[in-house]
Amino acid sequence: MCRWIAYSGTPVLLSQVLFEPEHSLIDQSLHSRMGVETTNGDGFGIGWYPRDMAEPAVLRDVGPAWNDRNLQEVAHHTRSGLFFGHIRASTGTAVQQSNCHPFRSGRWLWMHNGVISDFRRLRRDLALAVDPALYARIEGSTDSEVMFFLALTFGLTDDPPGAVARMAGLVETTAEAHGVPHPLQMTVAVTDGESVWAFRYSSEGRSRSLFVSTRVDALRALHPDVSFLRGLSDETRLVVSEPLGDLPGAWNEVPESSYGVVRPGGGELRPFRPEYAEGPRG
Amino acid sequence: MCRWIAYSGTPVLLSQVLFEPEHSLIDQSLHSRMGVETTNGDGFGIGWYPRDMAEPAVLRDVGPAWNDRNLQEVAHHTRSGLFFGHIRASTGTAVQQSNCHPFRSGRWLWMHNGVISDFRRLRRDLALAVDPALYARIEGSTDSEVMFFLALTFGLTDDPPGAVARMAGLVETTAEAHGVPHPLQMTVAVTDGESVWAFRYSSEGRSRSLFVSTRVDALRALHPDVSFLRGLSDETRLVVSEPLGDLPGAWNEVPESSYGVVRPGGGELRPFRPEYAEGPRG
Amino acid sequence: MCRWIAYSGTPVLLSQVLFEPEHSLIDQSLHSRMGVETTNGDGFGIGWYPRDMAEPAVLRDVGPAWNDRNLQEVAHHTRSGLFFGHIRASTGTAVQQSNCHPFRSGRWLWMHNGVISDFRRLRRDLALAVDPALYARIEGSTDSEVMFFLALTFGLTDDPPGAVARMAGLVETTAEAHGVPHPLQMTVAVTDGESVWAFRYSSEGRSRSLFVSTRVDALRALHPDVSFLRGLSDETRLVVSEPLGDLPGAWNEVPESSYGVVRPGGGELRPFRPEYAEGPRG
Amino acid sequence: MCRWIAYSGTPVLLSQVLFEPEHSLIDQSLHSRMGVETTNGDGFGIGWYPRDMAEPAVLRDVGPAWNDRNLQEVAHHTRSGLFFGHIRASTGTAVQQSNCHPFRSGRWLWMHNGVISDFRRLRRDLALAVDPALYARIEGSTDSEVMFFLALTFGLTDDPPGAVARMAGLVETTAEAHGVPHPLQMTVAVTDGESVWAFRYSSEGRSRSLFVSTRVDALRALHPDVSFLRGLSDETRLVVSEPLGDLPGAWNEVPESSYGVVRPGGGELRPFRPEYAEGPRG
Repeated sequence: MCRWIAYSGTPVLLSQVLFEPEHSLIDQSLHSRMGVETTNGDGFGIGWYPRDMAEPAVLRDVGPAWNDRNLQEVAHHTRSGLFFGHIRASTGTAVQQSNCHPFRSGRWLWMHNGVISDFRRLRRDLALAVDPALYARIEGSTDSEVMFFLALTFGLTDDPPGAVARMAGLVETTAEAHGVPHPLQMTVAVTDGESVWAFRYSSEGRSRSLFVSTRVDALRALHPDVSFLRGLSDETRLVVSEPLGDLPGAWNEVPESSYGVVRPGGGELRPFRPEYAEGPRG
Repeated sequence: MCRWIAYSGTPVLLSQVLFEPEHSLIDQSLHSRMGVETTNGDGFGIGWYPRDMAEPAVLRDVGPAWNDRNLQEVAHHTRSGLFFGHIRASTGTAVQQSNCHPFRSGRWLWMHNGVISDFRRLRRDLALAVDPALYARIEGSTDSEVMFFLALTFGLTDDPPGAVARMAGLVETTAEAHGVPHPLQMTVAVTDGESVWAFRYSSEGRSRSLFVSTRVDALRALHPDVSFLRGLSDETRLVVSEPLGDLPGAWNEVPESSYGVVRPGGGELRPFRPEYAEGPRG
Repeated sequence: MCRWIAYSGTPVLLSQVLFEPEHSLIDQSLHSRMGVETTNGDGFGIGWYPRDMAEPAVLRDVGPAWNDRNLQEVAHHTRSGLFFGHIRASTGTAVQQSNCHPFRSGRWLWMHNGVISDFRRLRRDLALAVDPALYARIEGSTDSEVMFFLALTFGLTDDPPGAVARMAGLVETTAEAHGVPHPLQMTVAVTDGESVWAFRYSSEGRSRSLFVSTRVDALRALHPDVSFLRGLSDETRLVVSEPLGDLPGAWNEVPESSYGVVRPGGGELRPFRPEYAEGPRG
Repeated sequence: MCRWIAYSGTPVLLSQVLFEPEHSLIDQSLHSRMGVETTNGDGFGIGWYPRDMAEPAVLRDVGPAWNDRNLQEVAHHTRSGLFFGHIRASTGTAVQQSNCHPFRSGRWLWMHNGVISDFRRLRRDLALAVDPALYARIEGSTDSEVMFFLALTFGLTDDPPGAVARMAGLVETTAEAHGVPHPLQMTVAVTDGESVWAFRYSSEGRSRSLFVSTRVDALRALHPDVSFLRGLSDETRLVVSEPLGDLPGAWNEVPESSYGVVRPGGGELRPFRPEYAEGPRG
């Protein structure tokens, strides 16, 4: 219901990734190919880490990304080695800045494509499971923001994969208690400014698409004539809802029920499954 | 921290009340005289009952009222015998449509000027007291909206004064449990499309200003030359945060800790005090 | 590049025409079938004549129509017997309220779907031809607004077809002087609150689509079971960029290079051709 | 009718200048002390030169600066050694992004506080004097933007003081032809990314306020304990509509009818007077 992109690697102008590629994220805001909705015009957001800052900046607005001048200005004048971009297609919740991704807490960013089924019925129980000390910071009305606060509650800053697994488990047990089948459908990206974790999961096992780019050294060997690749470090990576451009060999689908980590010095790909509380929670 | 106006009586163009009077609500958005904040530029809203409809329309936006063209257009082209107008000065919560007043539920409208002290600390406990069937309809992040949903929870549509008293009582007992002194400061207007209830109360006994206009027949006797008054029914009334115009004898302060009812066939003015639950709540 | 709808007839809620029909204008904002652009998300506008007012109200905003709550509110709570609706796909000019249709002058409304080719090169010469007394009222940067002011300059309020013909002629002679071929592509609707004139023309003879609805009495004979038709006068008409709904026999294409008039007491369909000044102009 | 600030010197976070000082520009958007209007809530803009780019970025929006989150985000995460900030109080023209300052052309930025009297009457003649090759780039409806395009027409990029003098002269002769007395009231800042030119002039000789900061080395001698000054180069300068903070000795009023240049290696202060064309122009 949304599309997103995460970039990690050699610092570049945001526009080189967000605007310039064929079938870029901004192009997907008008013409998505793989999404449930072909138009993602209900707001957008970018989050980026300036060179010497631990806390990221976030720019979000409620209009379509394709015609937003401030987005263009910032993207064409800002360099970063780690940034997120997100375009939104609302599934019913209000079109407001506080419902736009990425969400931020300290140096952490979070963005999501997907949906919690029948969220209106589950919203209260999920919100109650958020750490009371965090509850007051919820500003919007989306499932995505509640998922973020649940992950923070369950230890996101110490153990991202574990916290996301516990969040997913809670969503599923809560849904079961309410008789909501197949409640979770998600691709999530989260970062602390150094590593990026990207999750692909759905209760039904039919998750939204997610792709990770091939290592740049391998791509360069395949395409010695593509000048853009020459300026990038071997470890530069993109994780995206749907592929950009049409470079053969550039994109690898992230398997169902798995997550990847992208970080300097090497990433990894692992299976993902929700984690269910055995005790009183759930 | 906001200003509002409620009109009940002979159908008029909204602009005749919202724009034309000296020191109108729209003028107060730039130059409030009696508010804590002199500028109320963080959004606005109007709610009105079209002639033959039970459910009101609501127009809200996030910019200042003084320069909003859509507000001008609608106000200059819409007649109603019962409408609300509100201008917002945020006390920290996001400037978004879902934080603008009036709030609506079915045929009910609610608007508020004031604040719950230290709302961030109390927000979760107050939200938990909202009827679970209503919780998912909370869209914004203001104290005002939570107060509305609490009043709905406590029987607003059957007994407005009782429901508002129980809401105020819950806010005070919740605040006491968290060690927050003098938590409530409010002037509230609520309507079902027929009657308007207006409340003035603060825990500290130093409430924001609230005024109700004199009966039109009495005003006409005082000012036989004011042509505008000739077109209005005897029972037409305004309830306002601060007086409009400068007609001597036109405005009466609503006393501390009281509420008034404005309705066809006669209103009333009564004392208001919070109602505290004796049982396990609070 | 845009889509529009004009309604004239029995007063109805705007929403009955703008939102409820299958493939309504609001649906076309996301999924146009016949437009050059399938998404019309760069702003919208409606203009309507309240029952007892000669001057129309206009509501315009810069976001997409499909997610705008104020549009929904006004459309679901306002009745009118003559109104316009427009959704915009920018061809490069700024996304701002003053570039949204309909444009208004006194009791006249104007809206446009199409483009003046290479408008940047022609803009100054066209703007200079606007009556100097009107020039200062130009607020935006679109070709559509300049076309409106040219038509006003050429006598729109006295002779709409003649004024539009002279406007079209000026655009073509100005374009010729600049070496711009096939400069004009337009479907235009204009009204004074009583009659609606709708024009279909392009220099190249390949104009954007335009349809007018069949007389209601004829439609009722074809579809005696369609309840919505029973409430409408025989002369109620819609003029639209692309058909709504799927009622067989309901829609008639307006021929190339022609214009129609819809008014109480009977409309007409006539050929349209630009009118060229012979004297010093052009 | 507006307020602005120009910074040139040691690269700092924009927020250190725009948000942090007592009585900062953002504070002035709510509570200006020296302006004709105390509230400047009709839009804002910033323009800045990233470290290694000749063309500046511009962020502009239509809401008040005091509550805009994107402005806060960018200002707190962007460093620059040359930037402009502007807050707008509309004198009647539309509140739209294209009417917000600063205006940009290539690597030049322009911002203005003031007004051309009776601009509606003069607008067409002034616009006609704009170079036809530039005319189509006018996007908004303000006097300020037309002044910028006139200055560009009259050689701004080669000779800023001369071009601004010729622009001012044209405004005055055009106004005289229309019988408009005392037409020009302006403080203008313009930059090419290296030097900043700041002009204070009004036809009547009663110009809006303008101040330039004292050289940092002199200020440091006066205030050895102010730590912020220690990090700034001797030549760092601010030009502002009204003083920030309350540091004694920090601000110097720019005299009537004069302009200053701020640039690395030394600025200057010179008299300014309009320049009138003798030939066919004007």
